[in-house]
Amino acid sequence: MNATLKESADAGLAQTMQEMGAAARAAARDLASMSSEQKAKALDAIATELRIGAGEILSANARDIALALTQGATPAFIDRLALTSNAIEAMAAGVEAVAKLEDPIGTSDAEWARPNGLKIARVRVPIGVIAIIYESRPNVTIDAAALCLKSGNAAILRCGSEALNSALAIHACVAKGLLRAGLPAGCVQIVATSDRAAVGHMLAGLDGTVDLIVPRGGKSLVARVQKEARVPVLAHLDGNCHVYVDKSAEPAKAKAIVLNAKMRRVSVCGAAETMLVDRAGAATHLKPLVQALLDAGCEVRGDAPTQSVDARVKPAIEDDWYTEYLDAIMAVRLVDGVAGAIAHIAKYGSAHTDAIVSEDATATEKFLKEVDSAIVLANASTQFADGAEFGFGAEIGIATGRLHARGPVGARELTTYKYVVRGDGQVRS
Amino acid sequence: MNATLKESADAGLAQTMQEMGAAARAAARDLASMSSEQKAKALDAIATELRIGAGEILSANARDIALALTQGATPAFIDRLALTSNAIEAMAAGVEAVAKLEDPIGTSDAEWARPNGLKIARVRVPIGVIAIIYESRPNVTIDAAALCLKSGNAAILRCGSEALNSALAIHACVAKGLLRAGLPAGCVQIVATSDRAAVGHMLAGLDGTVDLIVPRGGKSLVARVQKEARVPVLAHLDGNCHVYVDKSAEPAKAKAIVLNAKMRRVSVCGAAETMLVDRAGAATHLKPLVQALLDAGCEVRGDAPTQSVDARVKPAIEDDWYTEYLDAIMAVRLVDGVAGAIAHIAKYGSAHTDAIVSEDATATEKFLKEVDSAIVLANASTQFADGAEFGFGAEIGIATGRLHARGPVGARELTTYKYVVRGDGQVRS
Repeated sequence: MNATLKESADAGLAQTMQEMGAAARAAARDLASMSSEQKAKALDAIATELRIGAGEILSANARDIALALTQGATPAFIDRLALTSNAIEAMAAGVEAVAKLEDPIGTSDAEWARPNGLKIARVRVPIGVIAIIYESRPNVTIDAAALCLKSGNAAILRCGSEALNSALAIHACVAKGLLRAGLPAGCVQIVATSDRAAVGHMLAGLDGTVDLIVPRGGKSLVARVQKEARVPVLAHLDGNCHVYVDKSAEPAKAKAIVLNAKMRRVSVCGAAETMLVDRAGAATHLKPLVQALLDAGCEVRGDAPTQSVDARVKPAIEDDWYTEYLDAIMAVRLVDGVAGAIAHIAKYGSAHTDAIVSEDATATEKFLKEVDSAIVLANASTQFADGAEFGFGAEIGIATGRLHARGPVGARELTTYKYVVRGDGQVRS
Repeated sequence: MNATLKESADAGLAQTMQEMGAAARAAARDLASMSSEQKAKALDAIATELRIGAGEILSANARDIALALTQGATPAFIDRLALTSNAIEAMAAGVEAVAKLEDPIGTSDAEWARPNGLKIARVRVPIGVIAIIYESRPNVTIDAAALCLKSGNAAILRCGSEALNSALAIHACVAKGLLRAGLPAGCVQIVATSDRAAVGHMLAGLDGTVDLIVPRGGKSLVARVQKEARVPVLAHLDGNCHVYVDKSAEPAKAKAIVLNAKMRRVSVCGAAETMLVDRAGAATHLKPLVQALLDAGCEVRGDAPTQSVDARVKPAIEDDWYTEYLDAIMAVRLVDGVAGAIAHIAKYGSAHTDAIVSEDATATEKFLKEVDSAIVLANASTQFADGAEFGFGAEIGIATGRLHARGPVGARELTTYKYVVRGDGQVRS
């Protein structure tokens, strides 16, 4: 492209993005006062359109896969990208499930009266316009659309180029569903180009119309968004999750939980990366747990005591304690009781999800109170770190920041509140 | 200072700030698991030390005032800066009141069980380390210290140079109270220098130790913080507040509310700046309300119909509808009913605080639902936009963003949550 053409294309993109922002803002205003029934009706219409459009979605997905294969994509990448008829049916069913969830909008978190007679309520309202920037998972298109609509927010979606055909085909179904239900198209929009400059416009806030950005993808995407965004970001960073096995742990429970936490799916953010074993329970727990991991095909990297229980254990270095492997590798070390576990997690953890296995109520309560992570579990697998497992119907990610929302982000987490104050002529003295 | 000395001073400040961050992080860890009783005891000890130290605070304040006067400070500036014995007693009583408030930490927002038997609770926890950057109001020192301590957060305070002596004297009492109660000094620290580079270090997050920044001051301070901060900001921007008088309004209530909302204190963020009068009720309401404002010494800038009711009314220009006067000036115009008021507020308002005066339940509910502001009131003055008036005991400001907290920021708003999940060996299938 010559310089003039490039300039004109840039100006065109800028204008398109501003128009999307304005349409989203207008739609958000409509959505904020829409009834739960209207929103549910729209979600059901979208589910219907997804089923009708399944063939077109699959053929668009085939184009994405073909292109990815010519570019040498890994099997794991293709796995994230590929859709099937079952996957599309699951999307439709998921949207119907979101439609049936309780509508968070308009509910009161708290209500109280003041001595002067003022009645105050803290009422849930939508955030407004949410921009979701994601990579190669086409299903984020529908999860984000459904959760934003449920929570009364307008969504602006931006899918990476590798899944863009699939995302556009899914979005076409969303658009038809909105139209059929009589909702403005601005409720859910998608950026139709793979031009990376579009992301820059979104991060700048589209002229003040974007209230929140949710990046969903690899670390480089999230880092770029956090660095450049001029509006608030709800980000998902590392999940360096721990299982601590207390000396009081029931061995069978410990084994089941550790194996599940590590090996059920090694690539999810809730997968455990480090096992901490109570030094006082090492004689009972260390060898069976380490061997169970090794026998399940997990590489174990351990401290000296852990290396001594099985020749297959490799030595752990300092970096291992910080690492989110997302692979069949687990770091293992002894710690001095629950206090030692808490100290290790405070130093090396990422405040995502951490579990204790224990039959000792004092140790359990200390762990649950003092481990400062978004999710802390007792006697359960870290792989429960998931919005659906929490009963949220769907999630748009797991928030690892401390502000606004922590842990699974469902419809409720995409809301904010306002104070509604009812008086009878009160003035302030 | 020559270049070498400057460099060495810069390095010294950088090190001092990093040390403050590390001490705050360590104190935050202690505070997070501290009992409500320990925190209340520390607050009471601080109140005692404030009373003991009143003389030193007043003499430090006198030095600040003397300096401000030599620099030509305005009476309004001196008014914000000046302390009295009564003001210090009010600070001490305020800290005791915060001590008596319910501790938000450890309370559950919600608890539920999953079909697999997992019990999930969403539990309030501290945010961690909060940096408060403020200007010429020395009492922010104690409000911020008390609210952070109550909510289990470590505080790093940064007072502007104009009130630094006063703030340091108040902080000395806080430090003595912490010591007496056996709490680490890192719980509440203050930057002892007026070097503006200290703010830069805070905005950069002090090596990852700052979780939240709260700027409290003029627009240029808030703008700098929002532009430069690399960590989340809870900011207080404009309060362009409206009172809408519906045709159904009871005239006496309307008069009392409009006068109070505008004139009680014109310099507070909850002061009303624009009055919107229902065109269908103009014959009843417009003239008496405008004349009441004029007679109370308020300048009125109106649209054509408003100008026609009294010769003292000046013409309003487009900019007036956007303006937060913080002065005895009110913009007045007719609108087409509650829908017109909502549209005006959506276009010109700042989403801070807006009120309707109405005896018509339909109009009232429409206004309360559709006006998208942090605080919406029916038949009450906008000047109730205040943490103490909401029953929060104290506030650190009014949040005007949409994320995390909106409206008055008290102890509860300085918390976040974590999920505590209790199982009995559950693993994920």
